[in-house]
Amino acid sequence: MAIAETALRLPIPSLPRGYRVAGTHAGLKRNPTREDISLVVSDYSATAAGVYTTNVVCAAPVIFDRARTPGEGFRAIAINSGNANACTGTRGLADAEAMAAQAASLIDVPASSVLVLSTGIIGEFLPLAKIERGLAVVAGKLAADSDSVVTAARGMMTTDTRPKLSGSRFSSEGIDYTLFGMAKGAAMVGPRLATMLGIILTDAALDPSDAQRLLGETAEQTFNCVSVDGHTSTNDTVLLLANGAAGGKPLHGKSLEAFACALHDVCEALAREIADDGEGATHVLRIEVSGCPTRDQARQIARTIADSPLVKTAICGADPNWGRIVSAAGYSGVVFDPERMVLRLNGTLLFRSGAPVAFDGDAVSESIKASRETLIELEMGFGTESIRFYSSDLTAEYVHLNADYHT
Amino acid sequence: MAIAETALRLPIPSLPRGYRVAGTHAGLKRNPTREDISLVVSDYSATAAGVYTTNVVCAAPVIFDRARTPGEGFRAIAINSGNANACTGTRGLADAEAMAAQAASLIDVPASSVLVLSTGIIGEFLPLAKIERGLAVVAGKLAADSDSVVTAARGMMTTDTRPKLSGSRFSSEGIDYTLFGMAKGAAMVGPRLATMLGIILTDAALDPSDAQRLLGETAEQTFNCVSVDGHTSTNDTVLLLANGAAGGKPLHGKSLEAFACALHDVCEALAREIADDGEGATHVLRIEVSGCPTRDQARQIARTIADSPLVKTAICGADPNWGRIVSAAGYSGVVFDPERMVLRLNGTLLFRSGAPVAFDGDAVSESIKASRETLIELEMGFGTESIRFYSSDLTAEYVHLNADYHT
Repeated sequence: MAIAETALRLPIPSLPRGYRVAGTHAGLKRNPTREDISLVVSDYSATAAGVYTTNVVCAAPVIFDRARTPGEGFRAIAINSGNANACTGTRGLADAEAMAAQAASLIDVPASSVLVLSTGIIGEFLPLAKIERGLAVVAGKLAADSDSVVTAARGMMTTDTRPKLSGSRFSSEGIDYTLFGMAKGAAMVGPRLATMLGIILTDAALDPSDAQRLLGETAEQTFNCVSVDGHTSTNDTVLLLANGAAGGKPLHGKSLEAFACALHDVCEALAREIADDGEGATHVLRIEVSGCPTRDQARQIARTIADSPLVKTAICGADPNWGRIVSAAGYSGVVFDPERMVLRLNGTLLFRSGAPVAFDGDAVSESIKASRETLIELEMGFGTESIRFYSSDLTAEYVHLNADYHT
Repeated sequence: MAIAETALRLPIPSLPRGYRVAGTHAGLKRNPTREDISLVVSDYSATAAGVYTTNVVCAAPVIFDRARTPGEGFRAIAINSGNANACTGTRGLADAEAMAAQAASLIDVPASSVLVLSTGIIGEFLPLAKIERGLAVVAGKLAADSDSVVTAARGMMTTDTRPKLSGSRFSSEGIDYTLFGMAKGAAMVGPRLATMLGIILTDAALDPSDAQRLLGETAEQTFNCVSVDGHTSTNDTVLLLANGAAGGKPLHGKSLEAFACALHDVCEALAREIADDGEGATHVLRIEVSGCPTRDQARQIARTIADSPLVKTAICGADPNWGRIVSAAGYSGVVFDPERMVLRLNGTLLFRSGAPVAFDGDAVSESIKASRETLIELEMGFGTESIRFYSSDLTAEYVHLNADYHT
């Protein structure tokens, strides 16, 4: 935790050794000030792992990457926003392959060493000529400086208001390692698997099986604990590249554990950023559910609260409407005894022993207004497992954004 | 279908023989023009059946009624709005018993013959003195005329903009039977069990076990196929009273089948009314999912579409954004082949064979704007079961209503 929070306070985290990035506008988005093509290149052959959407209707780049990861010998990720290449059938899959081949040719690596990410409008074919022109531009200006990092992160944004970056460092057996993460996600963010696009880069060396296992476990505890609107995207993907540029053998034992901690910090920071930047959000909800027999049950309760429009509008209105929170837990599908449940909102006790508790409603309302983050703590009292879940409030601005975003 | 639609076009359906009703304002709601106490009385001993919320956190009146139904010998239902008597612990249960006893005393029937319904704010204790004064008023003006029916229906409303009434008649073996239904529900309407308050009255005679079975089956196909915000209430209840005032023995065989059809019509009409009156709604969504192996799978797909904020805002914006509909089906949890899926919106083909279809977007958008009802038809192509599901769109007005409705 401490590492990632420190990293977030830094203006821009550094890239690990052996990576260069760039972004540009290539005409996929209408606004010429918005980047829509990015390229991430590893100067060394990298291990790659990926976690993907569980949506049955999944996009061509998901099908493409999923067939290739985990594995070794990867050199680049080509990214576009403004077009999701989803629901585009066999032509969409051929377009994803063509996009990877374009990037490979421009940076002179094998086509099989390039992965692709797409996000944006569903159901339109990729404009391959525009993408090729954009890739040519970014291939010519790859760099590791802060401006390049920000521009590359902006190239994967859709309705995000800001790039989401995170970094972490750790040392093990005399070697310093760096992790870097960037992500996008402000809508179609639902609590299943990756739920957004994310790229994690490290200069550590990793075996593909370790990379895949750790990425999967970490995504389950971080990206899978975020919801803006409960709508699982067709394109959700998190990719991890590990190029070994820091030196040393593939991590194992204590080194691998240290890496796992750093990976968790980077992913949790990005996950929180996604909720915080939820479309139209005025609050980020941190929902801590504890005292359950299993972590899945805790997540199920937290997710139901996170997705309730009545809870989300109550926080928007700075209303400590605990009945909506308690009743959302009640319809989560988890069977529990309401008499044992204890609810606190921003630290104030609101409900215990199945009955209301006297509290200063105005003071709690003021505390919601005073902070960007609202803390909902629910102790269920029938186990020892817990979960932390992030969500955003539901505002009229969310409706305006989504009623007016036309296909 | 035909019967219920005809009934809906009537201004106000008639009560069956042997029932009288009334409603009044007793000070539970602040606005003195809004009724908040109602009483339904059967002049004959009636069979009663009930279906109730599946929420683990359920209200005192739910616990009270559930323990007493199905059964015989019922004479009245006492109803209040403005206070849900939910999350009120053992005192709440005692208050529900007291409310039933008050009503019983006022109309001179056994306390055990009265059921209770409450809806409104969660977590406050019932104001029993106000309720008793209100019950005394309504006990003195019970009647079967249209004004009394409307006033009684208004007494169970919360944020509903209008009373929801439905009626049906059928004949069997020379006897004419009447069904009457009234319901409330505009928020905390989620697709599990009753999901609102509803009262169905009939002058047919029914065995308690038949009454319970038919009410359960019908609720599963009607009230359980409605969602406004996916938030299952703590108080959801549908009660059926059958007082036999039409004459004849308890229905069986063909008569019971005719009753079941009429019951379905009455319940479906009320269910659609609830979606249509969803908070802030400008459209009612009729979602028809067909071609599934089981009806539960069809319902799961329909419910996921019905609850997606992205689908609901798209309809609010008159946007034929089929990607949101198709991707919602994809994360429903039902495994299917997207290549076989066919989507139509207001009759226009939008998606087939896993790829976009050329269509006139402006014309479809105009068709959404031109009608209160939007029809989403999804053929899944891997079975023969289907479902009809009702929902409402998500508007900025919904957010205003719920961010500003303070506890």
